[in-house]
Amino acid sequence: MRDDTLNRIARIVERRLARVFDEAQAGSATGLFPGASRSPVMDQVRDLTMRSGKRVRAALLVCGAGLFDAEAERDPAVIAAAAAMELLHTYFLIHDDIMDDDPTRRGGLSAHAALAAGLGDEKLGRDLAILAGDLAVALHEGLLAGLAAPDQRRRLAARIFADMHLDVVHGQTMDLLNTGDAEEVARRKTASYTTVGPLAAGAALAGASEADVEELADIARPLGVAFQLRDDLLGVFGDPEVTGKPVGTDLRAGKATFLIREGLGRGDAGQRAAIEEVFGDAEAGVEAVRAAASALAESGARGACEERIDQLVEAALRDLARRCYLPEGRLFLEHIAGMVRRWPE
Amino acid sequence: MRDDTLNRIARIVERRLARVFDEAQAGSATGLFPGASRSPVMDQVRDLTMRSGKRVRAALLVCGAGLFDAEAERDPAVIAAAAAMELLHTYFLIHDDIMDDDPTRRGGLSAHAALAAGLGDEKLGRDLAILAGDLAVALHEGLLAGLAAPDQRRRLAARIFADMHLDVVHGQTMDLLNTGDAEEVARRKTASYTTVGPLAAGAALAGASEADVEELADIARPLGVAFQLRDDLLGVFGDPEVTGKPVGTDLRAGKATFLIREGLGRGDAGQRAAIEEVFGDAEAGVEAVRAAASALAESGARGACEERIDQLVEAALRDLARRCYLPEGRLFLEHIAGMVRRWPE
Repeated sequence: MRDDTLNRIARIVERRLARVFDEAQAGSATGLFPGASRSPVMDQVRDLTMRSGKRVRAALLVCGAGLFDAEAERDPAVIAAAAAMELLHTYFLIHDDIMDDDPTRRGGLSAHAALAAGLGDEKLGRDLAILAGDLAVALHEGLLAGLAAPDQRRRLAARIFADMHLDVVHGQTMDLLNTGDAEEVARRKTASYTTVGPLAAGAALAGASEADVEELADIARPLGVAFQLRDDLLGVFGDPEVTGKPVGTDLRAGKATFLIREGLGRGDAGQRAAIEEVFGDAEAGVEAVRAAASALAESGARGACEERIDQLVEAALRDLARRCYLPEGRLFLEHIAGMVRRWPE
Repeated sequence: MRDDTLNRIARIVERRLARVFDEAQAGSATGLFPGASRSPVMDQVRDLTMRSGKRVRAALLVCGAGLFDAEAERDPAVIAAAAAMELLHTYFLIHDDIMDDDPTRRGGLSAHAALAAGLGDEKLGRDLAILAGDLAVALHEGLLAGLAAPDQRRRLAARIFADMHLDVVHGQTMDLLNTGDAEEVARRKTASYTTVGPLAAGAALAGASEADVEELADIARPLGVAFQLRDDLLGVFGDPEVTGKPVGTDLRAGKATFLIREGLGRGDAGQRAAIEEVFGDAEAGVEAVRAAASALAESGARGACEERIDQLVEAALRDLARRCYLPEGRLFLEHIAGMVRRWPE
């Protein structure tokens, strides 16, 4: 039943996104900057944005609003902000994929890989992908500029969007520079815009006070870490057909995720050796990655990661039950929180 | 006297920018995303943003407001928007310099070159510079989110910012893909955010109607083209000590500016050969670039470019004189329009 809600919201947000692209391609909204804007870059941003099916962040934004307003799903400002959330996500993904030299995304080519292939020029592909990310963030800015919400609500939501944007950029900076611990990096580059930002921005648009928004953020943070851990698990054990990503990227990139740190801490000498064999080796073969994955499972690291996800979700659900939220919104949030136990993200 | 106005506004905007960086380094404005955000990327964005002295775009934004409100310079929303304009400029410059492999900017290293030098890693420098641009655009988003202006004014200004952002990204895309004529590319990637966007956004914040804003944009467009032409001239004849950019970048990059097209059209066989010798040759030596510059002057192309700037400025001034703007704001805009006849940009 809740999956119906999720699908319905995804389709509403996708219709809004399609309108954003149609309008941007046709030309400037204010009419001050004449000329259409159709280009391979625009096509790429549209294609990448539209080919995701889950829309967790958009759903969580609508859900955050639904905790305070039973009509949230029919509020154009909430839907526009949810679409802006998806465009912010597109922008982060495109720029991240350039930095990680990641050739695939959402079951297809990443933006820079697709543009490079289309134009037969790697450097041009990368440069245009920088612009593709910039285009996505500009479209998100356009949606936020037009939000038809009472001024005070709009202002708080816009400040949350800007704060979230800064936090993610800083988290990605920490990741590239290898500063800060893995938890802080995960919190800043993932939790902040997967759960905290969307829920908080939605609540703000539905009229939640700053104090309400802070309470909701306290529920959202453990959920965000759970999403990150699920992502780490899927990066090693997931089905590439479902996740849209190849297996072993974190291992090959030498990214010390919670899962991998647990494996190195819990494993016996042989298991540790299997993990270290591929850790940080960009050229590691499929067999070696498979052996490292087995070692991660057999060492108990996989189980520990699943257990931690359960604990985080339980903590969020406990907190959620204590609050006086609207029942429909609360049930929907419980549903999404439950999904992280089994979901590809 | 008007230079005093320009300097005074530049200092006011710089103080606002310093506050933006201080606050962002200290942590999130809403408190929802804990942790400070100081990093080499933040330092680079701050350094690059603060080391420009002119602030033409910020001044034009304040000037646009000054046409409709005599107290514009003391309006915190106007100053915040002017600071946001400078941050948008920083973001465009950083990403452009990555795409153009340009090692210098504003008399120092460009962001990617500085970050690569500091970390001893070219790829990491480029990746962090993508994030430096992203950080600048996030800071601009934060300023726009907090604009303390009446809702209708704020909304129009924010829509202008978003439209301008889209137009510049599309102009840069056209430039990289070599689509569209040089005039349209120049209009979209330069005029739109040098004159049209700042003047229009300032006017909107000061209460100008959409029709007023459109009239002002008609004055701003020829001025923007004049700025572009001045920039083209300075790229060949400017003093690098003053412009902060090496001479001959457009020639070496094979960028068909109005100046270069005029030179190829007007020059005799020898002059054309001197220009073609370096055009598009990234490795062209200093002597060859100097010979091409002489050919551009002697062919009459330089004079034609100066003449075109004069015509464009005259057209803008004629239009300006016909409008009922506040006298102080109008005099200031006339001053800036006059400056493009002699100014390094």
